[in-house]
Amino acid sequence: MNDLITQLTLIPLIASVVGLAAAAFFYFRVKSLPEGTDTMNLIARYIREGSMAFLVREYQVLFVYAIVVFGLLFLAFNSYGTGLLAGLCFLFGAFLSLFSGFIGMKAATYANVRTSQAAREGSKPNALLTALDGGAVMGLSVAATALLGLGSLYYFYVDSPNLSTVLHAFAVGASSIALFARIGGGIYTKAADVGSDIAGKVVEGIPEDDPRNPGGIADNVGDNVGDVAGMGADIYESLVAAIVAAMAIALTAKPAYVAGLFSAVPAGIDPVFLAVTLPLFLAGLGMAVSIVCIFIARTLRENSPAAVLRAALVVPSFIIFGVSFLVMPMLGATQAVTYAIGAGAIGGALIGLITEWYTAWAPIERVANANTTGAGTGIIAGLAVGMESTVVSLLIVAGVGFLANLAMPEGMGLYGIAMGAVGMLAGTAIVMTVDAYGPISDNAGGISEMSGLGPEVRAITDELDAVGNTTAAIGKGFAIGSATLTVLSLFSAFILEVNHVREAAGLDAMVLKLDEAPILIGILLGACLPYAVGASTMQAVGKAAQAIIDEIIRQFNEIPGLREGNAEPEGTVIVDIATKAALSQMVLPGTVAILAPVTVGFVMGPAALAGMLAGAVAVGASLSLFMANAGGAWDNAKKFIEGGGIDGHPKGSDTHKAAVVGDTVGDPFKDTSGPGVAILIKVMSVVSLLVAPLIATLH
Amino acid sequence: MNDLITQLTLIPLIASVVGLAAAAFFYFRVKSLPEGTDTMNLIARYIREGSMAFLVREYQVLFVYAIVVFGLLFLAFNSYGTGLLAGLCFLFGAFLSLFSGFIGMKAATYANVRTSQAAREGSKPNALLTALDGGAVMGLSVAATALLGLGSLYYFYVDSPNLSTVLHAFAVGASSIALFARIGGGIYTKAADVGSDIAGKVVEGIPEDDPRNPGGIADNVGDNVGDVAGMGADIYESLVAAIVAAMAIALTAKPAYVAGLFSAVPAGIDPVFLAVTLPLFLAGLGMAVSIVCIFIARTLRENSPAAVLRAALVVPSFIIFGVSFLVMPMLGATQAVTYAIGAGAIGGALIGLITEWYTAWAPIERVANANTTGAGTGIIAGLAVGMESTVVSLLIVAGVGFLANLAMPEGMGLYGIAMGAVGMLAGTAIVMTVDAYGPISDNAGGISEMSGLGPEVRAITDELDAVGNTTAAIGKGFAIGSATLTVLSLFSAFILEVNHVREAAGLDAMVLKLDEAPILIGILLGACLPYAVGASTMQAVGKAAQAIIDEIIRQFNEIPGLREGNAEPEGTVIVDIATKAALSQMVLPGTVAILAPVTVGFVMGPAALAGMLAGAVAVGASLSLFMANAGGAWDNAKKFIEGGGIDGHPKGSDTHKAAVVGDTVGDPFKDTSGPGVAILIKVMSVVSLLVAPLIATLH
Repeated sequence: MNDLITQLTLIPLIASVVGLAAAAFFYFRVKSLPEGTDTMNLIARYIREGSMAFLVREYQVLFVYAIVVFGLLFLAFNSYGTGLLAGLCFLFGAFLSLFSGFIGMKAATYANVRTSQAAREGSKPNALLTALDGGAVMGLSVAATALLGLGSLYYFYVDSPNLSTVLHAFAVGASSIALFARIGGGIYTKAADVGSDIAGKVVEGIPEDDPRNPGGIADNVGDNVGDVAGMGADIYESLVAAIVAAMAIALTAKPAYVAGLFSAVPAGIDPVFLAVTLPLFLAGLGMAVSIVCIFIARTLRENSPAAVLRAALVVPSFIIFGVSFLVMPMLGATQAVTYAIGAGAIGGALIGLITEWYTAWAPIERVANANTTGAGTGIIAGLAVGMESTVVSLLIVAGVGFLANLAMPEGMGLYGIAMGAVGMLAGTAIVMTVDAYGPISDNAGGISEMSGLGPEVRAITDELDAVGNTTAAIGKGFAIGSATLTVLSLFSAFILEVNHVREAAGLDAMVLKLDEAPILIGILLGACLPYAVGASTMQAVGKAAQAIIDEIIRQFNEIPGLREGNAEPEGTVIVDIATKAALSQMVLPGTVAILAPVTVGFVMGPAALAGMLAGAVAVGASLSLFMANAGGAWDNAKKFIEGGGIDGHPKGSDTHKAAVVGDTVGDPFKDTSGPGVAILIKVMSVVSLLVAPLIATLH
Repeated sequence: MNDLITQLTLIPLIASVVGLAAAAFFYFRVKSLPEGTDTMNLIARYIREGSMAFLVREYQVLFVYAIVVFGLLFLAFNSYGTGLLAGLCFLFGAFLSLFSGFIGMKAATYANVRTSQAAREGSKPNALLTALDGGAVMGLSVAATALLGLGSLYYFYVDSPNLSTVLHAFAVGASSIALFARIGGGIYTKAADVGSDIAGKVVEGIPEDDPRNPGGIADNVGDNVGDVAGMGADIYESLVAAIVAAMAIALTAKPAYVAGLFSAVPAGIDPVFLAVTLPLFLAGLGMAVSIVCIFIARTLRENSPAAVLRAALVVPSFIIFGVSFLVMPMLGATQAVTYAIGAGAIGGALIGLITEWYTAWAPIERVANANTTGAGTGIIAGLAVGMESTVVSLLIVAGVGFLANLAMPEGMGLYGIAMGAVGMLAGTAIVMTVDAYGPISDNAGGISEMSGLGPEVRAITDELDAVGNTTAAIGKGFAIGSATLTVLSLFSAFILEVNHVREAAGLDAMVLKLDEAPILIGILLGACLPYAVGASTMQAVGKAAQAIIDEIIRQFNEIPGLREGNAEPEGTVIVDIATKAALSQMVLPGTVAILAPVTVGFVMGPAALAGMLAGAVAVGASLSLFMANAGGAWDNAKKFIEGGGIDGHPKGSDTHKAAVVGDTVGDPFKDTSGPGVAILIKVMSVVSLLVAPLIATLH
């Protein structure tokens, strides 16, 4: 391997080590903070134990899954002599996902009660800092493990003919864990949320976080397993998939085209390998920028939390663009690559801000006002807002793709789109930090309420929580926008890989003509899958919530003194119900997502599979944006009314009750099905990329 | 022109004349029936006048639109020497749509009160017959005018080089009227429905059809302008587009491939023209089968209305398959064509029955039961059912495409898919008859209620109305299933046409490689459009309903004695509000739908436009199925509860109120946005096909 490539490859590894060190620093800093009263501690322990119990049981299910897939990969790739290697790389990708999820969630369950304690001590800046530090553990470990895994594999296999298999198998490991973690966590969190909301408020007239509500613990556990661990696995997968897609395109594109990316390639360097290294290098750069920005954000803690966190999400994109502008020429690359990166980075920020606009500003007032004539009109208004925001977000994604393609020299348009996706995700560490901040401050509010802390404490945690809702919306915009670009890149990488293999086998290239029947049928089949996952996850939440409601009613009926606050609710029973439901219901959609592309690929051939991916990405990207944003709009419309946004329609009024209906519908929409569909299309693409060599010569 | 072709071409024309004669027969038969009491008459006159006033004002808007498009077509095609011809054919297609809509809706507004009168006389069979005859006017004139237009153009231009332009321009005329009629009518009907429902039930505690409800007339007008005229224009367009797509594919496919469809071509016949004639011939055949089946259904009126109407929707498909089996060999065609037709015809029936299952049987019990814990869980359950049914329906469409493609000889797979679509729509006359039966019996119920007729009358109209809901679901399944297949065919026809033109110009064929950036970006742009139309139509209904609610509240506050039933409500004011709202709100989505493909085609070229169509069809087909079926599930879940389906949760209970919320959301979902999106993708494809020659050589 050439020295420059070695050096470039080491940068992501160094960045990853620095990231892990920073994560460790924040982990121990959070753990060293004071925990507050015994009651707070007890509740926090329940939440931590419930979260960890879920994770452990989820890992058991995933262990079986991983063994099965390991065996299948071994068999499938054995004739190529890479059976064991593919299997191990898959396990490596899966393991790092679980590892970062475990560390990050543990930190979050330490940070929640300490945030609450800082608020109890009256310091909003300290409370903000604690929640942010807790989130940083997740953010940094997610990005660092992605870099560690891909960076080390690349380092060792850069000259190997098996590089593609190694990278793709790693990505499949990352993707499939993300799929299960997202869907399982999403079902858990929303079943607990909807169940305890409905049972508490409607059936018994008790607020969600009331100490008497048996669903309170499960609800807070749900924030951790869904919005911390699930989200973390998702973002980890996004970063991995985006990098792998760009690397795969560079590896399979025509070398003459690749050379066009560079104005002056250093002596002895193969431009192809330089192009393959760039995405990984960019991610390392993004990591460095993120770490610096996290520390800067911490020093600004005396300012308005909303301003600090919004800046933390948006500003790094511009810095990454600027740094690329300086660094790319140093590597001999033309600024074309920088423009593609910039289009992605700034496009991501733009989607985030647009998402915030649609889920936090004028549009949600429209939704809130529509609730004055009942839940029906409120829901109609929210659906309309969700659809409108989908249009705008998709237009931005299309614009990023257009610009990234335009900036590129001939034949490298797809590489440009892939680099745009990496550019959008380069700031993953800080974006995920702010994302994980949200559920931590939400938990802090829950703990304050359940421990009976005073209204002045709750005022601080409420403000932090409200900011978390906004940042969650921005983060979701980033996530789905980057997922769409990543899937387009993976999709192109899949086609290039198929043709690469066909060429090596002396076959004609597969020409995917859009007007051929198998492709059209593939498109229809692909269009089905997001709805299949949407249906099964919505239903899973509905069913599990029902079971939780029944149990809460039972407890109020059978535990003497619970209603009056003289007896303890049996919160762990609810935790157990939610855990079982989530784990059993995540298997079907997860398996379908992984098996569908494999089956179509082997039975109908690579052309039909390409059609299927095209249908799935069109439907999946739009449906997930729609569900995420409609859900966000309903949620915030409810909060707007609760904050006294409509004169004469306070909390508890019919208008508010109508808005609660929207919020209930929005819960699984935005936090289970929407993200589930987004990850579905990524998993399908990654799996297709991995099996591409196996099906390339069929049909 | 060859004699056999002439004869074959005459058959659709003869079928169309017979169809028009039968329509006239039913029209005058309905008009000759007794009209009932003066009150009934007065209400019926309000409804008729309101409906006609809407249609006339809609036609004024459409007149301006038609003039503009005529001018644009003239300019665009002038350099080809076909400017005037294209413009006139466009006007012809548009005019026939308006004509059939006008006749059909007039008949429906005569049939409604006469159905009510037959029920008043105590005869359920006569009431059924009257509603069915009223519907037959619409059904027959829709199918007959489609055949008349296409048949006569084909007859006169069969040997002309301008045949394609003539047919495509006619289809654009049909499509764009359908788009506006569907969206305008859909906004009207659901704004009136939601508005009078909410204001009547929630605000004033008065049922929807109560004589005191000022929205009652507008609600009944809405059934006519939306579910009769709007639906009719939609189905007329579907039939036209499916036939044109199949003709276009036959015209542009390689002649050597086309010859493979025939085992023995009669001497002197060009197989291409035989293949071009087949879809038109098949539609004529379907017309004949439909007329026979309508008369058979009439003789069965003493049986259960549900059984008769379901059979009327499903059985003709099998007969068409059987007749094709006998006739195709007589024309020298192989049975391959028959199998494609059969796959379409039976697939359509299957989608209809599946749609009925999901919107009338076990799944709606699940939705109904979910309402016991509130509107939120009810809506979640309905969304899940809608998504699940989308998956099954799309799988059937994909299966039809797969089989139709499989049955065909080499190179003719797309023709097979197109013939499958024509096979699905061949029974249009009877399907639309049963579809139009629904709103007529709904109107009959409304008139009975508003005229204060007794419960025994209402019992008959209620039963007929309930059956109408089921048949509406089946009809909707047919409509969206056939739309999807039609769009796939139009899409293929577009690509073939582009390449045909390029070949003639000595250019290389456009190869639509799925892995090229412009196509991927086109797919994203295409994915936006269904959501754009969905958002604007949902919002339009929400806004217009709000205006109606405000006006109804005003009337109850300001008209002394209205609440007590001593004063008349000002129903025509509501009719006016709904009319204005619908007409002003239909313009934007309608214009976007037509301009988007033209703009992308000219600015980004035919490849990006093809990508856009692919994205739009994947997203549009699934989204419209989802909206239609979720809406149907909520509607019927509410009716299930009202029918005493859940013990202890009667009409008026909290569970019922929760179900009403779902119904309110479902109204615009299933009757405005869902059909609007379905027609959007058809219009986009038809417009693309027309402009294909203009953009084929760009980029």
